Amino acid sequence: MHGPGDVRVEEREEPRIVEPTDAVIRVSAACVCGSDLWPYRGIGTEDSAWPAPMGHEYAGIVEEVGDEVETIKPGQFVIGSFWASDNTCEICRAGYQSACVDRVPMGALGAQADLLRVPLADGTLVATPDIPADDLVPSLVSASDVLGTGWFGAVAAEAGPGKTVAVVGDGAVGLLAVLAARELGAERIIAMSRHDSRQRLAREYGATDIVQERGDAGVAAIKELTNGLGAHSVVEAVGTQESMMQAIGATRPGGHVGFVGVAHDVAVPGMDLFWSLVHLHGGPAPVRRFLPELIDLIWNRQINPGKVFDLELPLEEAAAGYRAMDQREAIKVLLRP
Amino acid sequence: MHGPGDVRVEEREEPRIVEPTDAVIRVSAACVCGSDLWPYRGIGTEDSAWPAPMGHEYAGIVEEVGDEVETIKPGQFVIGSFWASDNTCEICRAGYQSACVDRVPMGALGAQADLLRVPLADGTLVATPDIPADDLVPSLVSASDVLGTGWFGAVAAEAGPGKTVAVVGDGAVGLLAVLAARELGAERIIAMSRHDSRQRLAREYGATDIVQERGDAGVAAIKELTNGLGAHSVVEAVGTQESMMQAIGATRPGGHVGFVGVAHDVAVPGMDLFWSLVHLHGGPAPVRRFLPELIDLIWNRQINPGKVFDLELPLEEAAAGYRAMDQREAIKVLLRP
Repeated sequence: MHGPGDVRVEEREEPRIVEPTDAVIRVSAACVCGSDLWPYRGIGTEDSAWPAPMGHEYAGIVEEVGDEVETIKPGQFVIGSFWASDNTCEICRAGYQSACVDRVPMGALGAQADLLRVPLADGTLVATPDIPADDLVPSLVSASDVLGTGWFGAVAAEAGPGKTVAVVGDGAVGLLAVLAARELGAERIIAMSRHDSRQRLAREYGATDIVQERGDAGVAAIKELTNGLGAHSVVEAVGTQESMMQAIGATRPGGHVGFVGVAHDVAVPGMDLFWSLVHLHGGPAPVRRFLPELIDLIWNRQINPGKVFDLELPLEEAAAGYRAMDQREAIKVLLRP
Repeated sequence: MHGPGDVRVEEREEPRIVEPTDAVIRVSAACVCGSDLWPYRGIGTEDSAWPAPMGHEYAGIVEEVGDEVETIKPGQFVIGSFWASDNTCEICRAGYQSACVDRVPMGALGAQADLLRVPLADGTLVATPDIPADDLVPSLVSASDVLGTGWFGAVAAEAGPGKTVAVVGDGAVGLLAVLAARELGAERIIAMSRHDSRQRLAREYGATDIVQERGDAGVAAIKELTNGLGAHSVVEAVGTQESMMQAIGATRPGGHVGFVGVAHDVAVPGMDLFWSLVHLHGGPAPVRRFLPELIDLIWNRQINPGKVFDLELPLEEAAAGYRAMDQREAIKVLLRP
């Protein structure tokens, strides 16, 4: 990205092993992320240096590993999170690999590329049982972020048996939070969406109800569906002030908000939070925690998160992919190098 | 209270049974609460009507009950929370009695008085096994709010075995959060306090470390004590922007902040919360959830929360009690009608 709205596919220096814990992978699939749209739209870019490599979602085949890499081998098909993590520090062991004391942001390395250096390969990457069938690749790359993030949102919201779960946001993360809530056993899943095609996918993923209203009207609609109490669990998958307050307002006292939208220009008023009595948890998803389980569900074809990709482009056409997502013409774009 | 800074003890109409679920109790002890200081200082009083009855912490002997009261009997010594609650609705059953669908704020009825009407008596009040020895009364009335609130803070922060717990605020609630953390089995308890007498009581209640610094320096001090990671659990018991950000900043990723300070003029920046990856939970404590357990601990003299009362006054001298707490000359004032 050469600046907001300016995406170009260019030759860059070939990634190679820098640290002995690195791997280099040949990328089979990458994606455009909803969070890539923030800089594309010029939001939060005051301190950005251009051009910047882009992309932090990836799956591919290991080309080469550094001398200290022990478990990951050349030839394996692997998936990693958007944070590289050692997976051994105290924070990782507690399940928060996205805050690993040694973490490296994969976005800075640029996964929208043919080749990608992955730091801390043993900690970061998870190999599939075998080279996957091609039709599994979209689902597998989704685990790298968008599925892992939706899943974390549902886990943070404590979706589970007997629970009513509402999902604010009908982007790919929100839709996959619906899928996650269903897999986690939620009894009732309310998708908040105004778009026919997204509503259809939400229903396919397990939504039992659709609410079209937003803001205070959205909160009122959720309360009406929940005996006036609010949902037990609400996933916030947008990242705006309205969506955050909608999520808090739609949650019953003692309930849980899982927020995974990148919270730009959001400020949560203390008194609203105090009186809501909700639990609030979220942030950059510790996708690595969930990868083995998610890969297993995908490998066994129990879930099909790859359906969120409604536009697949060769890497060379990345700019068109950004445009389509920015214009909401595509839910999620898959890039094939 | 006739207005900020203006507390008077006056004759009012005698409380009587209004609803068939009411009880009237003869108050053995009431308190001045840290939250009573907000209106005393003129904070958040834009919509207040003066004069207003004051006090929401109480323990005493049942004088009379309404026709539909079944479990509470005249002559029993009882304690209730600062919210009256039915203890049967779905929110109460989930342990959030302070958000009961039928809740009544006890502060509006005025517990700093000889007699007090308690709505929803069966749901609200918990009786002691017998009439307590007089020296137990301060501890028992503390369960009504200040102990129950500190306890909730520690529970919300998930204090427990193996955990390092930090407590922001050395008022009575903060000190009792230290006590709660110890009872809940915390391994290490860091009290943040600058006052000798409060530090002493914190140590007596189980604090293993004292941090005097505040704000960013306080956060740095907690990190230094926790291998750079932050505490597992932090209780916020002040309710200001500085204390809230200090609590969030002092918590490790994946850790828990329990906030029980009344969050006036606080706004939590979304990006700070997002990147912190903490769990945030708090609000008006569902004291009723904890009352049976707390009464038991007090009755068996396992805990002595009544030590936070360092000034005991007859009810007639309530104004002096407010003054002493406002000037921080007293940690917590007990009023005896």
